[in-house]
Amino acid sequence: MAPRTACFLVIGNEILSGRTQDANIRVLAHALNGRGIRLMEVRVIPDIADHIIATVNDCRARFDLLFTSGGIGPTHDDITAACVAEAFNVPLTRHEDSFRQLEALFPAGEFNRARQRMAWLPEGATPIKNSVSTAPGFSLGNVHVMAGVPRIFHAMIDWLAPQLEAGAPLTSASWYSHDVYEGDLADRLTAIQQDFPTLDIGSYPFEHGTERGVALVAKGYDADTVIQAGSALKDLLQTLDFTPKEGDPPRSP
Amino acid sequence: MAPRTACFLVIGNEILSGRTQDANIRVLAHALNGRGIRLMEVRVIPDIADHIIATVNDCRARFDLLFTSGGIGPTHDDITAACVAEAFNVPLTRHEDSFRQLEALFPAGEFNRARQRMAWLPEGATPIKNSVSTAPGFSLGNVHVMAGVPRIFHAMIDWLAPQLEAGAPLTSASWYSHDVYEGDLADRLTAIQQDFPTLDIGSYPFEHGTERGVALVAKGYDADTVIQAGSALKDLLQTLDFTPKEGDPPRSP
Repeated sequence: MAPRTACFLVIGNEILSGRTQDANIRVLAHALNGRGIRLMEVRVIPDIADHIIATVNDCRARFDLLFTSGGIGPTHDDITAACVAEAFNVPLTRHEDSFRQLEALFPAGEFNRARQRMAWLPEGATPIKNSVSTAPGFSLGNVHVMAGVPRIFHAMIDWLAPQLEAGAPLTSASWYSHDVYEGDLADRLTAIQQDFPTLDIGSYPFEHGTERGVALVAKGYDADTVIQAGSALKDLLQTLDFTPKEGDPPRSP
Repeated sequence: MAPRTACFLVIGNEILSGRTQDANIRVLAHALNGRGIRLMEVRVIPDIADHIIATVNDCRARFDLLFTSGGIGPTHDDITAACVAEAFNVPLTRHEDSFRQLEALFPAGEFNRARQRMAWLPEGATPIKNSVSTAPGFSLGNVHVMAGVPRIFHAMIDWLAPQLEAGAPLTSASWYSHDVYEGDLADRLTAIQQDFPTLDIGSYPFEHGTERGVALVAKGYDADTVIQAGSALKDLLQTLDFTPKEGDPPRSP
C-alpha cells in the first residue's frame, strides 16, 4: 500500500484579509491522517476566477486528492462550482436530486433564483452530503469541494473521509520536554536522523504562555522502526537531563 | 500609488500534520493591511528542499513581496536559509555581525556548531531584528524570512512592517446582522456589486456558538465610493427587516 497525497485549497478573501481565523486545516489534516492520506500543501487564494481555475488544475494534477473550501453559497462571489466546471472543461448542469431536496426545504416563494443556483453542479459531479446544512458540496474526479463555514466543513469531511481510498498508515512517536532549547540537541538529533534514514525526524519548539520547550517527532511507514526512533528521542532528552513526556505538548500554539 | 501584493509561505510539517494551529496568517494580514499591501496568497508546504526552492522562485516572481515563516532554527530540519540561497543562486556565508551577537549571548562552550549555523545567511541578506529572541530572520531582495513560533514571528513583523514600501491604502466598510441568510439577499447584493464595479463586494456567513448571520463587506481604493457602497449594504439589511451593525461580527470563526 502506497502513501497517498492531498492538497487543500482554501478559497477565501476573508482569510487573506485577516477577518477570519482559519479553523479547517487542522480538521482536514486529522481526518486525512486517519485514512493514511498525507496533506502535502495548503493554498489560500482569493475569489478570483482565473486564480481559482489555474490553481485547481495545477493542484489536482500534482496530488492524489484535492480538497477545496469556500465559495459554494448563493451569492455572486460564490464562484467555486463554476470555476471547477471550467477547470474540468464541463458545463454546469442542474442536479435534479439536489434541486428537489432544496425546493422541499424552503417555504413557497423563498426558493428564489439565488437558492436554485446552489443546485447547479459541474456535469458528472456527485453531492457531498452533510448533516447540518443545505450547502452544495460535491466530488468530481479527485476534487472534493466543501463549504468554508467550519461547522459545515466538519460535517462534510466526517461524511466523506470514510469513503476515501485509504493510503499506507503513517506512524508517529513524539516526546517533548519543557525548558530544553533546540541548540542543545541539534547535533545529536542529526545523528538520530542519520540512524533512521527512512523516517522523518522533526524538532518543533513550542511556547504556551510562559511555558516553552521542544517537541521531537519521528514519523514513518514502518511502525517498529518508528518505535525504535521514538525511544532514541526519549533517551536524547534524558541524557540532556530533561524529563521527556510522551505525545504533544499541552495546547501547542 | 499602486496597490502592492504579497504572498506568505508557511514552511511547516507541523501545520500540515495538524499538530499545530496556524496563528501567523492573521497577524501578517493585519500588518500588511496597515501598509496598503494586499495578501493575495498563502501556501503551507513541508520541509522538503526541492518543494521550498521551487515555491520561493514561483512566488517571488508573481508577487511584489514574499514572506516566509519556519525552518530557521539550529536543527537539521531547519533548511529555509539554505533553500532561499539556492533559489537566489547565491552561497550561504557567515554574517559576521550576527555571529558576534550570538557568540556574546551564550556562555563559553554553549555556542556550539548548531548555534553557529544560525549566523549563516544567503550572501547579500540583511537580518530582520526582533526584540524577543536570537532567531535569524533576514531579508533578501523581495523575500522576507521569519520564524514560525508566533511570538517571534509577531516581533519580527512589528519591526519589519514600518520599513516596507507602502502601497495604496485599501478602505473597507462592513455591516453584519444576525439571523439573515445569504439566499435572502443574494440578488440585491449582485445589484450593489454592479452599481460599484470598482469595488469588491463580499458576503461572509458567520457562526459563533448558537449565533449566526451574514457580514457584508465593501472594499476598494477610493474611500468615498466605499462609504457609499457601505451605506447601500446597510440599507439592504434594513430593507430586509434586519438590524445592521457596523464592523466585524463578534469573534467571527
